[in-house]
Amino acid sequence: MTSRGDTGDALDVSGRPLALRTIDWQSLFAPETVAVIGATDTEGSPQRAQWNQARERLLARGTRAVHPVHPTKSAIGGVPAYRSVLDIPEAVDVAIVLVRDPLPVLAECVEKGVRFAYVFAAGFSELGTAEGQAAQERLEEIARGPMRIIGPNTNLNLIEPWRDGLPGRKLAVVTQSGNQGRPIVQGQELGIGIHAWATLGNEVDLEFADFAACFARTPGVGAIAAYVEGFVDGRTMRLAADEAVRAGVPIVCIKVGRTSQGRTMAQAHTGHLTGPDAVQDAVFRHSGVIRVDDIDEAIEISGAFCHTPPLAGDRVALCVMSGGTGSHVADLCGMAGLPLPRLEERTLARLRTLLPGYLHIDNPVDTGGVATARPEGRKVLEALMEDANTDVLLAPITGVFPGMSDAITRDLIALHAQGGKPIVVAWTSPIRDADHRALCEAGIPVFHSFRTAVRGIRAMADFWALHRDYRSPFADVPREDSAAAADARRLLGSGPGAGSALDEVAAKRLLREYGIPVVEEAVAASADEAVEAADRFGYPVVLKALATDLAHKSDLGLVRVGVGDPAQVREAYARIVADAGAVPGLRLTGVVVQPQVTDAVAEIILGVSHQPPFGPTVTFGLGGVFTEVMADVSFRVPPYSRSEALRMIGETRATAVLGGVRGRPAGDLDALADTVMRLQTLALELGDQVRELDINPLLVRPRGHGVVAVDALVIPA
Amino acid sequence: MTSRGDTGDALDVSGRPLALRTIDWQSLFAPETVAVIGATDTEGSPQRAQWNQARERLLARGTRAVHPVHPTKSAIGGVPAYRSVLDIPEAVDVAIVLVRDPLPVLAECVEKGVRFAYVFAAGFSELGTAEGQAAQERLEEIARGPMRIIGPNTNLNLIEPWRDGLPGRKLAVVTQSGNQGRPIVQGQELGIGIHAWATLGNEVDLEFADFAACFARTPGVGAIAAYVEGFVDGRTMRLAADEAVRAGVPIVCIKVGRTSQGRTMAQAHTGHLTGPDAVQDAVFRHSGVIRVDDIDEAIEISGAFCHTPPLAGDRVALCVMSGGTGSHVADLCGMAGLPLPRLEERTLARLRTLLPGYLHIDNPVDTGGVATARPEGRKVLEALMEDANTDVLLAPITGVFPGMSDAITRDLIALHAQGGKPIVVAWTSPIRDADHRALCEAGIPVFHSFRTAVRGIRAMADFWALHRDYRSPFADVPREDSAAAADARRLLGSGPGAGSALDEVAAKRLLREYGIPVVEEAVAASADEAVEAADRFGYPVVLKALATDLAHKSDLGLVRVGVGDPAQVREAYARIVADAGAVPGLRLTGVVVQPQVTDAVAEIILGVSHQPPFGPTVTFGLGGVFTEVMADVSFRVPPYSRSEALRMIGETRATAVLGGVRGRPAGDLDALADTVMRLQTLALELGDQVRELDINPLLVRPRGHGVVAVDALVIPA
Repeated sequence: MTSRGDTGDALDVSGRPLALRTIDWQSLFAPETVAVIGATDTEGSPQRAQWNQARERLLARGTRAVHPVHPTKSAIGGVPAYRSVLDIPEAVDVAIVLVRDPLPVLAECVEKGVRFAYVFAAGFSELGTAEGQAAQERLEEIARGPMRIIGPNTNLNLIEPWRDGLPGRKLAVVTQSGNQGRPIVQGQELGIGIHAWATLGNEVDLEFADFAACFARTPGVGAIAAYVEGFVDGRTMRLAADEAVRAGVPIVCIKVGRTSQGRTMAQAHTGHLTGPDAVQDAVFRHSGVIRVDDIDEAIEISGAFCHTPPLAGDRVALCVMSGGTGSHVADLCGMAGLPLPRLEERTLARLRTLLPGYLHIDNPVDTGGVATARPEGRKVLEALMEDANTDVLLAPITGVFPGMSDAITRDLIALHAQGGKPIVVAWTSPIRDADHRALCEAGIPVFHSFRTAVRGIRAMADFWALHRDYRSPFADVPREDSAAAADARRLLGSGPGAGSALDEVAAKRLLREYGIPVVEEAVAASADEAVEAADRFGYPVVLKALATDLAHKSDLGLVRVGVGDPAQVREAYARIVADAGAVPGLRLTGVVVQPQVTDAVAEIILGVSHQPPFGPTVTFGLGGVFTEVMADVSFRVPPYSRSEALRMIGETRATAVLGGVRGRPAGDLDALADTVMRLQTLALELGDQVRELDINPLLVRPRGHGVVAVDALVIPA
Repeated sequence: MTSRGDTGDALDVSGRPLALRTIDWQSLFAPETVAVIGATDTEGSPQRAQWNQARERLLARGTRAVHPVHPTKSAIGGVPAYRSVLDIPEAVDVAIVLVRDPLPVLAECVEKGVRFAYVFAAGFSELGTAEGQAAQERLEEIARGPMRIIGPNTNLNLIEPWRDGLPGRKLAVVTQSGNQGRPIVQGQELGIGIHAWATLGNEVDLEFADFAACFARTPGVGAIAAYVEGFVDGRTMRLAADEAVRAGVPIVCIKVGRTSQGRTMAQAHTGHLTGPDAVQDAVFRHSGVIRVDDIDEAIEISGAFCHTPPLAGDRVALCVMSGGTGSHVADLCGMAGLPLPRLEERTLARLRTLLPGYLHIDNPVDTGGVATARPEGRKVLEALMEDANTDVLLAPITGVFPGMSDAITRDLIALHAQGGKPIVVAWTSPIRDADHRALCEAGIPVFHSFRTAVRGIRAMADFWALHRDYRSPFADVPREDSAAAADARRLLGSGPGAGSALDEVAAKRLLREYGIPVVEEAVAASADEAVEAADRFGYPVVLKALATDLAHKSDLGLVRVGVGDPAQVREAYARIVADAGAVPGLRLTGVVVQPQVTDAVAEIILGVSHQPPFGPTVTFGLGGVFTEVMADVSFRVPPYSRSEALRMIGETRATAVLGGVRGRPAGDLDALADTVMRLQTLALELGDQVRELDINPLLVRPRGHGVVAVDALVIPA
C-alpha cells in the first residue's frame, strides 16, 4: 500500500489510491525562474555544457530568468551568480541540480519554496551498496515534502527543443534511459512530431505514472512511447494507463524483464526491480498498454497513432503490386488475426474495369504493377478507400522501383490528404529516397517491416476497440469492507502465527466466508467418528490429516482417496494417524473426512500471491498434468471485471477442457467465473495480510453443478 | 516419388533421388548466343522494353550475339531479326520467350537445340482453371525434354547487373516473386554485394532447389536469401539444403503458408501448394534452413553471413553506451538463448582502468558514453575483441548523437579492419547518416532492430555449429529393401483394399515386422477362449472388437479396459459381440484379448502420414490430454538420424513427462527413440503405399522396460 497518490480519502478497501496525485505541471514545463545549482564556466567541465544548454533551452522556451548558483564565483558566463539558492532575490520555480552531492542543496531548495528539482547525480539505489541506499532514503525523505524531484540520474531532455511543422498529433516520450529515448525522439525523421521527453532516472519521486497521466491529458498528444525497466508502483502505473485509455492516448511501452539476464542488468542500471514477466504482461493487456519489444516498434507504432484517426475495426484492405507480396502480407495478417474480408461487390466491379483479368481482383488486390503508374493506380486505391467492408488500407512498397514506387507514393499522399480511411505503408527497401521522405512528411504512418505494420494495425484496432466501450476497473472497486471481512480477519489471526499455515478446515472456512463453495467435511477424532461421517456422506470418501503448518499432505502420504467402505475408512484412519506420528513436528488435530467428488470435469488451481510492484495478485491455472508439465497459468491484479476474469480463464487451456474434451461434459464456467470474482474480494480485503493462499484443487463440475474447493492452503503474512 | 532428379540409380529405397540433377549452368549464366523471341520495336510495348533491356544486359555480360525473333519484321532497332528461332544460322544457347503463347515457340526451341528458355508468359496453373492447367501440363511435357525452362511467369532478374566493389562475400537471391526480391537485392544499400537473382515464377522445370544448390557451390557466395511460396518437391529442397550446409552457405528463407490466408493467396499467385506449416518448420530446422518471417530479416541476416567469418559459438560480448540499452539488449539475448558470459579476469582488470567505477564493468559493458569519444572508447572495444570468453561483439548504436555515434563508428570500422572476432552493429535510429553508410561500406553487418541483430547472431551460431559437425541424413539412407519389406507388403495387401483399414491384429503384425514391440494378444472366437487367454496373460486384461475398417473402437464402445476376473471377461465378451452387432456394416472377426499394461509412464502417439510436398512423414505426439487439448505433436521427414529423432521427441512436452513428473519414474527414452527409428524404416519402404498409419497409444514403460504398442491403425493407400 505504499503509493505516491496524495488523493486523500480516494482509497480502495486495500488502502491503495483510486486517483493519481495532483501536480503543478505548469511550473515545471513553463517556469518563470530557474536556478542552475552547480553551474560553472570552467572549460571542459560537463557542468559548463549543462549550464549553457539549460540556459539556452529555457530562455528559448520563455523562462524569464535563469540564475546560476555557485559557491564562489560571482558570475558565470556574464550572468550574475548566487552562493545559494536562498540568496536569489525572487521566487524560484525550478532548480536544476548539477552538483555531485545534491542532498544539502535540496534542503535549501525546499526552504526556498522551489517547486521542482532536477537531480543529475548518480550513485543512489542503483549502486546496490549501503551508502547508495542510505542516500536514496534521504532523497526519498525530501521527496515526501512539497517539492517534486525528477531523478536522480536524469538530464535536460525535458526541456529539449523539437522540430516544428511535423504533421499529426505529437508523441510524448517517457524513458528510464536517455540512450534508449534518443532513437525514439529521432522518429522526427519519420515525420513524428515530439511533444516532450521525460527521462526519469531512478524515480525517487516523479515517476512514470505521473508523466504518462500528464501527457495523456495534454491536448494534441497522440501517443506516449515509453522505455521502462521497472515500475515504482503497480497501482499508479495502472491508474495512469486507465487515464490514457479514457483519453484515447495509448501507451506504447518497451518493458525490460522478460528474462533474468535483462532483470539483473536493469537492477544494476536504475535500481528498478522488475517483477515476474507473466504478471507484467497480464497487467499490460488488462490496462490497454501496448507492449512492444523493440525500438523500431515503439517508434513506428506510437507514431502511427499520432498520424491516423481511430480505427473502426481490424479489417484490412491490402493493395499490392505483386501476388508475392499479397501472399506474404496476407500470411502475416493471418498470424495477427487481422482479417482480409472480401470486398463489396461494387468495389470488385470497379476493380474489374481497372485491372486485367489475370490478376487477383479481391482482397488482397494485386495491381501487378501494371496499373500503378497509370491513372488506374489511383482509382484502385480510391475504390479500396471507399469499400465499406474494410477499416484500414495497407499498402506495401517493397522495393524502390522507378515508375512504381514513385507513382503509388504520389497517389497515397493525395488520398491521405483527402481524409477518410486510415492508410498505412510498409516500406521494406533499405533505400530511403525522396518518396520515403514525402510519405513521412505527409503524415502517413510508414513502417519498415511487414510484421511491424501488421502489429501496428493490430494494436490500433485493439486499442480503439477498448477505448470505445471502456469501463474503468477502478469504477467498481469497493472502498469499504464486505460483511465477510471481520470474521475472515479473525480466522486469519486464529492460526499459529505469521508465516505458518492455517489448518485445512480453517483455510476453507475463510473461503466460505467469501462465498466460495467448499466440499462438505467432518473432522473425526476416532475411527468410529470417521465411519459415521463417511456413512453420512456416502462412498467413496477422502480422508486427510488435519494440522496447522501442513503444506504437502499428499507427498507425505497423509491423504487417502477412493476410500470405498467402512472397513477401508478404519484402515485409512489408522494409517493416517500412524503416518502423521512419523512426521517430525507435526501435531495432528484430527482426520478430515470428505465425500469424494466424482463428476469433476476439470481440476483448477486458484491462488493469491504477492507480485511486486503490483501487490496481491490472483493466479488461475489448470491443475494436474497441466500445472506439472505445462505451467499453464494466468494472472490478474485486482480490481478486475467479470469479463476480465473470463479472459484470464481463457488465457489458459481451461476453455478447451471446460468446453468438454472428447465426449466429456462441459464444465460450469459461470460458477468458475463467480469464484474468481469472489476470490478478488478476498484478495482486495485481505491480500496484504496473506502471504500465500492456494485453492488446490478447485473442481469444476458439469454445467449447472457448480464448482467446489476440496483443499486449500492459507499462510498469513 | 515425382522428382526432377536425373541422377540415374542414385535413389533411396522409396525411389526418391539422393542427388540433384546436373545442369549446364555455364550456358545459362554466360551464354554465347541468345534469341529473344517476341522482340519488337513497337513504341509503348512492354516487349520493346524487355528486348532492349535483355540485349543491353547480355552484351554487357559478354554474350557475343543477341538475335531478335519476330514473325514479320526483318530488323528490330537495327538488329537483323529472324522469323523463327530455327532460322538463326548458328547454335543458340538461351531463348528469352516474350510471346503470350509460348508453347509453339518452345517446340521450335527444342528442335533448335536451345539449352535454356526463359518463359515470361503468365496464365498457367496459377489461374486455377482447366485451360491454365492444360497449358501447364503441355509445358511440363516440354520440360521433360533436354531443354531447361525458367518460369513461366519469370523476367530478366537473372541477368541484371549489380554494384561492384562491395565488401565481403556475395549474396545469391532466389525468389518466386520479383516484387519480393527487389528489396532484398537493394540490400546493396547496406553494403551487401549481389551475386545473382533468380526469379522462378511457376517453376515448371528449373526450381528453387536447382538454383540454391548451384549458388551454394559457387565460390564467393556467402549466403542465399529466398522468398518461397511453396516447394515443388520436398526431397529436392532437402538435397539443396544439404549441399548448402556442407558448403557453409546458409539459406535464409521467407516461406509463406503459416496461415490459410497466406496459403490461399500463394495458390492464386504462382499455383504453389503449401503444405502444413508445422511440417515445413520441422523440415527447415532439420535441414539447417534459416526461416525468417520478414524482408528486413532476410536481408540483414543473410547479409551478416556474407560479412562475417564463421562464429565459433554463441557467447555475446555486449558493449553499450547506456545501462538502459544494456538491460534491453541483455533481455532480448536472454529470450534468444544467447549467453552474455562473464568476461575474463584480465579483461575486467583492463576495463577497470578505462572506465569509472559507477558504470557496469562486466558483460554488458556500459561505457556510459563517457569513454566513447575518448581514446578509452577504442580500448574498451579492443579489450572485448580479445576476450576469450565470448564469440561475437554486439555494439548497439541507438541514436545518432554527435561525439558518440560517430566515435564508436570510427572505432568499430578500425577494429573490423584488423580482423578477429565478428562484430555486429544494431543501429536503431531512424536517421541513417554518413556513419551508417560508413559502417555498411566497411562490411560490418548492420541490423536495424535489436531483435533482428539477436536473431541474426542466434542464426549464425546455430548454422556454424551445424556445419562443423555435419553429417548428411542422406549418407545413411537405405537403398534396398530390408528383410521386413516383402512380408510387410504382403500384409498391406491382405486387407479389404486401398482406403480400408487393416484389422488391429494385422496392423500390429506389420509393426512387429519392423521390430516395433507390440502387446501380447489372442483372438478369441468365444467367451471360453477369451477367459483362457486372460487366465494365461493375468489380470487385468483388455478386450476389443476385431474387424477390418474399424477406426474408432473406443468411441463405439467396442473396447473394455480393466477387465479384472473371468466373470468380467465373459460379460465384456458378450457386450462387445452385442454392441458390434448394432454397428451397421461391421463384420466382427473375433475379440482381441490383451494383458493391460499397468506401468506406463507416458502415452505416445506415433504415425506416418503424407505431407505434400515432402511425402511420408513421421508424427510424434504425447497422447491423452496432450493430444486432445494441446495438439502437442512434432514431425520429421525421413531420412533422419537417431539424434534427430531425439530432437523430434524433445520438441514436445514428452521430455518433461518422460523425465518423471512429480515422483513418477522416468520413462524408457532409449526404447522410444529406437521405435521412432524403426518406424522410419517402415515409412521409407512402405510410406507411399500407406495412406495412414497410427500407433495409438504406444506406451512408454519405466527406464529399462521398453515401450509397447497396444493399438494401431493401418490404411493402405
